[in-house]
Amino acid sequence: MRLVVIGGVAAGLSAAARARRSDRSLEITVLEKGPVISYGACGLPFLVDGRVRSAEQLTVYTPEYFRKERNIEVRTNARAIAISHGRREIVVEGGERLRYDRLIIATGARPASAGITLHTLEDGERLKRLILDRNPKRALVIGAGYIGLELADVLRRRGVRVTLMEESGNVLHREDAGLSTTVRAHLERFGVDLIFNARAPEGGSGDVPGFDLAISASGLKPNVEMASEAGVEIGRTGAIRVDERMRTNIDGIYAAGDCAETIHLVSGRPAWIPLGTTANKMGRVAGANAAGGRERFPGVVGTSIVSVGGLGIGICGLSAAEARRNGFQPASARISAMTKPRYLGGRPISVELIADLATTRLLGGTVTGEDGVHAAINVIATALHGLMRLEDFEHLDLAYAPPFAAVWDPVLLAAQQLRKQAG
Amino acid sequence: MRLVVIGGVAAGLSAAARARRSDRSLEITVLEKGPVISYGACGLPFLVDGRVRSAEQLTVYTPEYFRKERNIEVRTNARAIAISHGRREIVVEGGERLRYDRLIIATGARPASAGITLHTLEDGERLKRLILDRNPKRALVIGAGYIGLELADVLRRRGVRVTLMEESGNVLHREDAGLSTTVRAHLERFGVDLIFNARAPEGGSGDVPGFDLAISASGLKPNVEMASEAGVEIGRTGAIRVDERMRTNIDGIYAAGDCAETIHLVSGRPAWIPLGTTANKMGRVAGANAAGGRERFPGVVGTSIVSVGGLGIGICGLSAAEARRNGFQPASARISAMTKPRYLGGRPISVELIADLATTRLLGGTVTGEDGVHAAINVIATALHGLMRLEDFEHLDLAYAPPFAAVWDPVLLAAQQLRKQAG
Repeated sequence: MRLVVIGGVAAGLSAAARARRSDRSLEITVLEKGPVISYGACGLPFLVDGRVRSAEQLTVYTPEYFRKERNIEVRTNARAIAISHGRREIVVEGGERLRYDRLIIATGARPASAGITLHTLEDGERLKRLILDRNPKRALVIGAGYIGLELADVLRRRGVRVTLMEESGNVLHREDAGLSTTVRAHLERFGVDLIFNARAPEGGSGDVPGFDLAISASGLKPNVEMASEAGVEIGRTGAIRVDERMRTNIDGIYAAGDCAETIHLVSGRPAWIPLGTTANKMGRVAGANAAGGRERFPGVVGTSIVSVGGLGIGICGLSAAEARRNGFQPASARISAMTKPRYLGGRPISVELIADLATTRLLGGTVTGEDGVHAAINVIATALHGLMRLEDFEHLDLAYAPPFAAVWDPVLLAAQQLRKQAG
Repeated sequence: MRLVVIGGVAAGLSAAARARRSDRSLEITVLEKGPVISYGACGLPFLVDGRVRSAEQLTVYTPEYFRKERNIEVRTNARAIAISHGRREIVVEGGERLRYDRLIIATGARPASAGITLHTLEDGERLKRLILDRNPKRALVIGAGYIGLELADVLRRRGVRVTLMEESGNVLHREDAGLSTTVRAHLERFGVDLIFNARAPEGGSGDVPGFDLAISASGLKPNVEMASEAGVEIGRTGAIRVDERMRTNIDGIYAAGDCAETIHLVSGRPAWIPLGTTANKMGRVAGANAAGGRERFPGVVGTSIVSVGGLGIGICGLSAAEARRNGFQPASARISAMTKPRYLGGRPISVELIADLATTRLLGGTVTGEDGVHAAINVIATALHGLMRLEDFEHLDLAYAPPFAAVWDPVLLAAQQLRKQAG
């Protein structure tokens, strides 16, 4: 019995490792089109800014590790170019054909636009050299998703004057005018101009007049062409459709990671939110099931966090506008509070909660602040998984001691405020 | 219609303020036996160590504030000594009688043993002076609850050699041998000797041979005598029995805060865990309901956090031993991980999760580490409120970006490990 995994980054390697744990006799081969496997793509901005010294620091495992320790064959520079499911064969660039019994597609995503981007380890090294060579004074970053925000942060810290252009009116792909305003104001103080509803320069991030450097971070698209050609169903989001066991419509073929869609547990609808955390989880489930298990991945609640100019920004669930579009009757409230007592260094934090008026179910949250954002957004995310109602959320038994927190946790204050407003 | 509240600290003042918001015409009187109201008792260790400069910094509101801004009469140095429910009267020390229609008992708790303790603002100031005057070289702290641990921390930071004696084998009242061992080893490196199963010196914390200073922090007991004499039912825990609306057995009398018991949402049994956070929440519910509302306080999950010698310790739910005693079939697993990538200053953290084998329901967690403890324990606490099963907990969509977290959050690694072990 042979399992082939296409893709050797987050989802693919999680899947292979998990499959091996389930079945010691399975023959497992991972095909990775690039020269390295298992790198932490989320660390790329820190490679560019020098806090990560070398690409090796971001590479967690080597093919040798997988071969020796896990009995998994990992081939780098091995690009799968076609799936011939009738014959249960993968065609690899160069002509080789590889038989499989079970297949996991973990082909990831790629930048939606051309030019200088930050997606692979090579991109990171290239961008770092470019910055050192050109020593730019003015840079343009296109796209205010988390990569765009992190790039703006990294460049600004090097003294570069940054313009951040975003096609929509949103940051982090979140339809939330309040958040957009907050982030723009903060970035302005930090020396980054954020321009919403901007048309990106033609030709992507090539040479743009007025800027010494232009980088495109305007989103990703899933790598689904090969799967689609093989008859694998693509969902409404444009990513591969899978069920909660990570099965595609074709028996024996699974998909996981940035190439696959999942369910948004708040809206109940298919969603495509490519993130390393989700990719790892989907990969584990796909690997377990491809090896005969019955694991399920329930879905996501759209949690995201980013740090820019010293401000932490955390989001999860739906914004009020998104909730309305999804058929809820949302109410929202925002509070500002201190993360802990002033005498122990408390910092201001702002928490917005969104709930459905009809059911009082919590629908989402947005948190901004210099501290405490991670803890707050994780509590909200966990409550969203638990389908918690506001009156239960308000009474959460959260940890308090002055070195850590305020006696009224900011998320509880926001819940009180929202209940007060919602009457 | 007149509401009388006995007690002007956390629960009492939360109740009075909440009642006022519900009913603008209610006549509200708060009786506080001490000279000040509304102080943050949890800040007392930081008053002793100087990070809080003066008692005023811990006093949030004054009686004048309540009178002017909330139209609530707050009397300090007014000790209620009897409740005559037949006449709907409170007898105040000195002989005055005060009529009520609704009564909220928020009489709090007191140290279980005599001698030098740390419970009131006066205690804090007295202890601070004592330390300055005596300049102790060796101190004894009796009791390894959170006050005892914080006192040990504060004294040690002043260069005092501390012996911490605990009657049981547990820290933080948690039946958890692993945690006890971890904390003792950590304290030893920090210069604090933690002795378990120790008999406290007779006479409490008076002069103890071999020590320049002895402080008792061996727990609290609820102030329920006056309530009990008036016919208010005392629960099995020794605190006042209330329902989820904070009603006692006597119509028109509510109780809230450290004098009242509540439900432990994991065990489903009555529990008495006196903490400021819970007191505030119970107070709000009692106040709303005494003013005609229908709020409910569902209960607690036993969350607690403390910092000692740079180590954060967070607990919630039940330990494995406690779970067994409560009729569950617990399994537990502990993992060590990094809070975030090393290149961004990640620190080690240890997470133990406990779940029920029969239902796979999560039952509790213990977290120790120099960083990230607050965020981790709050996720576990929220999941306990949501009655979450391990396989759902394992897939929580928690926030990740390198400045904040690791791609596999430590709590998720612990869940994976526990599922693996539990088979």
